[in-house]
Amino acid sequence: MISMKFEPKDENFVEKVRSSFAAQAIMKVIGAEMTRVEAGAIDIELPYREDLTQQNGFVHAGIITTMADSACGYAAFSLMPKGADVLSVEFKVNLLSPAIGERFLAEGRVLRAGKTLTIVQGNVFAFSNNQSKHVATMLATVMCLQK
Amino acid sequence: MISMKFEPKDENFVEKVRSSFAAQAIMKVIGAEMTRVEAGAIDIELPYREDLTQQNGFVHAGIITTMADSACGYAAFSLMPKGADVLSVEFKVNLLSPAIGERFLAEGRVLRAGKTLTIVQGNVFAFSNNQSKHVATMLATVMCLQK
Amino acid sequence: MISMKFEPKDENFVEKVRSSFAAQAIMKVIGAEMTRVEAGAIDIELPYREDLTQQNGFVHAGIITTMADSACGYAAFSLMPKGADVLSVEFKVNLLSPAIGERFLAEGRVLRAGKTLTIVQGNVFAFSNNQSKHVATMLATVMCLQK
Amino acid sequence: MISMKFEPKDENFVEKVRSSFAAQAIMKVIGAEMTRVEAGAIDIELPYREDLTQQNGFVHAGIITTMADSACGYAAFSLMPKGADVLSVEFKVNLLSPAIGERFLAEGRVLRAGKTLTIVQGNVFAFSNNQSKHVATMLATVMCLQK
Repeated sequence: MISMKFEPKDENFVEKVRSSFAAQAIMKVIGAEMTRVEAGAIDIELPYREDLTQQNGFVHAGIITTMADSACGYAAFSLMPKGADVLSVEFKVNLLSPAIGERFLAEGRVLRAGKTLTIVQGNVFAFSNNQSKHVATMLATVMCLQK
Repeated sequence: MISMKFEPKDENFVEKVRSSFAAQAIMKVIGAEMTRVEAGAIDIELPYREDLTQQNGFVHAGIITTMADSACGYAAFSLMPKGADVLSVEFKVNLLSPAIGERFLAEGRVLRAGKTLTIVQGNVFAFSNNQSKHVATMLATVMCLQK
Repeated sequence: MISMKFEPKDENFVEKVRSSFAAQAIMKVIGAEMTRVEAGAIDIELPYREDLTQQNGFVHAGIITTMADSACGYAAFSLMPKGADVLSVEFKVNLLSPAIGERFLAEGRVLRAGKTLTIVQGNVFAFSNNQSKHVATMLATVMCLQK
Repeated sequence: MISMKFEPKDENFVEKVRSSFAAQAIMKVIGAEMTRVEAGAIDIELPYREDLTQQNGFVHAGIITTMADSACGYAAFSLMPKGADVLSVEFKVNLLSPAIGERFLAEGRVLRAGKTLTIVQGNVFAFSNNQSKHVATMLATVMCLQK
């Protein structure tokens, strides 16, 4: 329904996003990787691991949120000018299905990029036997801090 | 402004909540402990660890959310009848200050307990040198699944 | 990115939705009309009126929310079985642009229809000189009350 | 649990808030009045009217949101410096009880006032026969636009 093309303001945005993601220590702890970096569009993937789960063996909603927040934050960051810093202001998450599967994909897609605030939609999918299921959807506000 | 007293429907709610929390594998990975279990009120604490951080050395918003989601979910669960299961439907988080400090406290407090849905407020505080700072606030909807 | 087809459970869903909407007195006060009724998809339109505005002459965010909430609620209601009642549980709205234009369109589209809870996405657009602008986006949880 | 005192940056904040509220045409349409103006704390009241309702005779969630959004927005505005403009970025509303009663009170209370963004909590109560009921709770992000 809504899809957009964005012009990056920083030509080195791919390198900038990847090096910032590499500095997120928590991503190594949970085993998440960034698998797509485009202007306004980021994908993060995570294999299932038993130690990331809540009491029923589903990946904890907070870990699904961790993936989605980084995907949304970096989707916003990819459009920010050189030297700017990125900050998550707030997000809302609806959990649509239990997070069970072999691996998980979080997509962050910018809806509107403003000078100070960027609004981003996140969606998380679970994959099992080559079938995908929509696990969670996020709506996030991300701030650009100019130095 | 708003504070409430709740009557638990399951007299063994403390044991039920603690044993379910103990089954959340992710809590051991991040080092979180449940430090308060009352009817409608749960506290979860987490010491700072470098490997839980995002690119600026703050605890990742998703890990703050992990604590707050479990605190809110178990606050709701503490009021549910015997045999019921608990499910996070959705939450919204505002990040108020960078999550930096020696340790973190997430408080889950039930605002309204319905038969099917319970609305819970979560607040996360950071402590440094015996001073506290309000780091995040959550508003969550939690579902009771009767078997 | 995400689009779905739903099977209505009540064959008279169009009539049911339209007659419930006709009973929303507030819709007459603000001048809103329901212009599309499909299974899981509702459109509501509103012409601009000066008396619906906030201090800058934009349509008040609460009125944009009123349109979006009814669009989302009825999108969910269209998929509910005969005799069920509909209830808004919660919603989150991001305001993307000032609500200025000749008329406004709120689209409610079901993301996931569960037995008890339905998750719906809402989007509101403003039209001026045949150009559209994305004004607001909503993510809503709607409940089905079986009698 | 959380309560705060704020120092206004604009000594004429009461007059500034009241005159901006008086310019919100929609408030006259629905019959809302501002009954409290303090630094970081605003109350708005609304008598019940049949023409503000949804299909069950409850005040429409969008009208409850209209009150709460203005209460939260002006709570933030009361703390902004002279010459700044106020803008609602986003809000999330949980509907706790049907909005039925003789009159309604929306309280907006600032949780954290930043230079650019202010986070505000809103609560709406219904009154019948001198008893109050908690109808809705809002968590809102409001922006300060410096000219």
